[in-house]
Amino acid sequence: MAQQMRVFAFDFNGPAHLSAGTWCHPTDRGHEYTSLKYWIEYAKLLERANFDGIFFADNDGYHENYRGSVADSLKDAAQIPTNDPAYLIPAMAAVTQNLSFGVTSSTAYDVPYKLARKFSTLDHLTDGRIGWNVVTSYSTAAARNLANQEQVAAHADRYNRAEEFIDVATQLWEGSWEDDAVIVDKDNGVYVDPSKVHDINYEGTHFTVPGIHQCEPSAQRTPVIFQAGGSPRGVELAAKTAEAVFMNAIDKPTLKKQVDALREKAIEFGRDPEHIATLQMITVISAATDEEAQAKYQEYLDLVSYDGAMARYSGWTGLDMSTFDPDKPLKDVEAKGTATMLTFFQKVDADKEWTPRDIAEYTGIGGTSPVIVGGPQTVADEVISWMEETGVSGFNIANAVKFQDIKDFTEFVVPELQKRGAMRTSFTGSTLREHLFGEGVARLPEDHPGAAYRKQSTEAR
Amino acid sequence: MAQQMRVFAFDFNGPAHLSAGTWCHPTDRGHEYTSLKYWIEYAKLLERANFDGIFFADNDGYHENYRGSVADSLKDAAQIPTNDPAYLIPAMAAVTQNLSFGVTSSTAYDVPYKLARKFSTLDHLTDGRIGWNVVTSYSTAAARNLANQEQVAAHADRYNRAEEFIDVATQLWEGSWEDDAVIVDKDNGVYVDPSKVHDINYEGTHFTVPGIHQCEPSAQRTPVIFQAGGSPRGVELAAKTAEAVFMNAIDKPTLKKQVDALREKAIEFGRDPEHIATLQMITVISAATDEEAQAKYQEYLDLVSYDGAMARYSGWTGLDMSTFDPDKPLKDVEAKGTATMLTFFQKVDADKEWTPRDIAEYTGIGGTSPVIVGGPQTVADEVISWMEETGVSGFNIANAVKFQDIKDFTEFVVPELQKRGAMRTSFTGSTLREHLFGEGVARLPEDHPGAAYRKQSTEAR
Repeated sequence: MAQQMRVFAFDFNGPAHLSAGTWCHPTDRGHEYTSLKYWIEYAKLLERANFDGIFFADNDGYHENYRGSVADSLKDAAQIPTNDPAYLIPAMAAVTQNLSFGVTSSTAYDVPYKLARKFSTLDHLTDGRIGWNVVTSYSTAAARNLANQEQVAAHADRYNRAEEFIDVATQLWEGSWEDDAVIVDKDNGVYVDPSKVHDINYEGTHFTVPGIHQCEPSAQRTPVIFQAGGSPRGVELAAKTAEAVFMNAIDKPTLKKQVDALREKAIEFGRDPEHIATLQMITVISAATDEEAQAKYQEYLDLVSYDGAMARYSGWTGLDMSTFDPDKPLKDVEAKGTATMLTFFQKVDADKEWTPRDIAEYTGIGGTSPVIVGGPQTVADEVISWMEETGVSGFNIANAVKFQDIKDFTEFVVPELQKRGAMRTSFTGSTLREHLFGEGVARLPEDHPGAAYRKQSTEAR
Repeated sequence: MAQQMRVFAFDFNGPAHLSAGTWCHPTDRGHEYTSLKYWIEYAKLLERANFDGIFFADNDGYHENYRGSVADSLKDAAQIPTNDPAYLIPAMAAVTQNLSFGVTSSTAYDVPYKLARKFSTLDHLTDGRIGWNVVTSYSTAAARNLANQEQVAAHADRYNRAEEFIDVATQLWEGSWEDDAVIVDKDNGVYVDPSKVHDINYEGTHFTVPGIHQCEPSAQRTPVIFQAGGSPRGVELAAKTAEAVFMNAIDKPTLKKQVDALREKAIEFGRDPEHIATLQMITVISAATDEEAQAKYQEYLDLVSYDGAMARYSGWTGLDMSTFDPDKPLKDVEAKGTATMLTFFQKVDADKEWTPRDIAEYTGIGGTSPVIVGGPQTVADEVISWMEETGVSGFNIANAVKFQDIKDFTEFVVPELQKRGAMRTSFTGSTLREHLFGEGVARLPEDHPGAAYRKQSTEAR
């Protein structure tokens, strides 16, 4: 019996996300992103298929490195235009019972007091089905438009701020209102017992928050904390505070190393590594048979936009890929970053020369995530082998053609995974934290630093 | 034939809003505020009754002036706890076609780039049924918790910031993306024509925003701009930039003066005063007959909490009302603010001595808004007389007992108003701006300062 994997759809509130040019496929529905009807249909599809949730990436800027302009990003809808994904969640939650929602929210240009209220609100409205993906914002466009800064803050500063941000927010969620503060006593006219609501008196380097949280406790109190940072400092922060970590390893050996390193680091910080779920990003193109899936994949590859892929890749790496000859092998190019690029992509194929055009073709489908193509058996074999060989907890499934690829996965792959016991057929607990860690675990576990605030609150009486 | 009034429900994402203690009434449903089901039922009720919309007040702090503590506010749920109202809108929009949504969002601790994306997202998801109530935040709790400031900024500074904030946001909404920028050309692989998306290059005193808006144009582009400021500077800002203004006059002569002053000021700024809707706040307690309504009103009055009313009133005025003897007439009290209070309440009843207890009783139902009590005829007569005697465009209807008072209004008063031609029986246009100003007026009118950005955008090609 295979281990049961956690499964999230990975998406973006815009016409297109990681893949380049595939929005031109006739079945692609990315242009429907402004419509609630579209997202409601999507939510119902995912819930029927027993997905644990949908996860929304987000970006508070836009890609403008390629040719020093946002023009190619706009042409290919390369993560621009984009609406705020958090507002999709209430409408999708209203038509589902178990589907959970992860949403990205940056610590760079927000304050903990406001963000804490946002996630408490969403945790209430979803009955505990919300997760927060903590990011620190790498976009210079965001720095300029949101904070009048030419550059983003230094990496270390961004992570220090993020760590304190999580700390303040967690204290608001866990430490301000006791569980039995809200009594709604209509006979005696007491809605809240004020003796059970506490000022948090937070004084830090970046934030000072003296007062009480505005929101009463919700099902999970603290949303499930997601992170994705791959740098040493990112891994450290995740090991300290994350409950689920997105991995984007290019192959299984790399993923195994990342999973193991995170687990070790978690133990160093006194946490049970089983309290951190790991989710590998993959893109799956599936059909009734391997042949049909391969044919579909070829259709997608034919649509890949070189400029669209390079607009994204330039944004992610901070390099302007327009300065490279598309057909010159990277090994023959002397420029900052090429050696790193080459090392990265040679894991996919060590024998390939890897020109910018090869990179565009590779990343044009699903960004840098592994692409799995096949019929039910092939895909099931492959994802199960990723689980078994790496110890990862599950997957964040990106798409190349919006809606259709995920619909195909639910139709062709999910039944096969369920037959093999590798995917759930029903839900037990109802909160996101329970989906990840088992029934009854709606709140932060005791080994999470945020749990200390909870105790303090009770003992302070 | 009476003039057709605009009608909004006035509410708050918390257990209780303006009224004190009435959440203890057995029929009150305020405690359901954390549930999507409740708000969805509410949305359907309002749409069936042909309400133009629902309007959400909000507060980014809490009342802590009374006895120098938030304790009495918590006890009576005096606008605390409170969740973020903006997240209710997508779920309520998904089950309605015409109902529109106004939501309060402060300019004090946010930046225009982020707020512009929030409202573009909501305008997309509601198909043009969104309005933004611009407030500048008077809460010291908000200043401390959100910005580590002991006091809010000076009134003039807050309004200067708000004016520039509106200016930047409007330029993002109107001036960045041309109407035909988004072409979704799958054959040629062009989603957006980059030549039709413009940097706004905004450089102001408070904000610098060089780049493009992240969102493509929505039905209204700019949300309908609501304001409520009653100070001279507030009226000036409203006359310059608002499309709908909340009035909270205590009687008809005062309201007429406010409406006339706003219209005159609008003309001074070169705007057609017909392009600004005015909405008076009222609280309506209705029933099948006058007698039943009066009996219900008495039930509510019996529930009014002195401390709950004073916790709110102290927050609104900035005075700690616990320092006054509850039963001593204001005229006999020598303290800052008492003369102003007395002048204000004597408009309600010139012969009354007005003790703090009288104020608590008066404001305990619907805050300082006029309370209209009666059967269908009485209420219809009264609201129509407010329209006729003041020139106001309609009403923002607050409640004392959550859900039930509005449900009573839809059941007892709406049919009577419709019979008299004073309230709509169906919708023509579908956007909020069309609800207020007529079919076809989905976009900002030409005399609004934001319209200039639109022209600039087209001419700049």
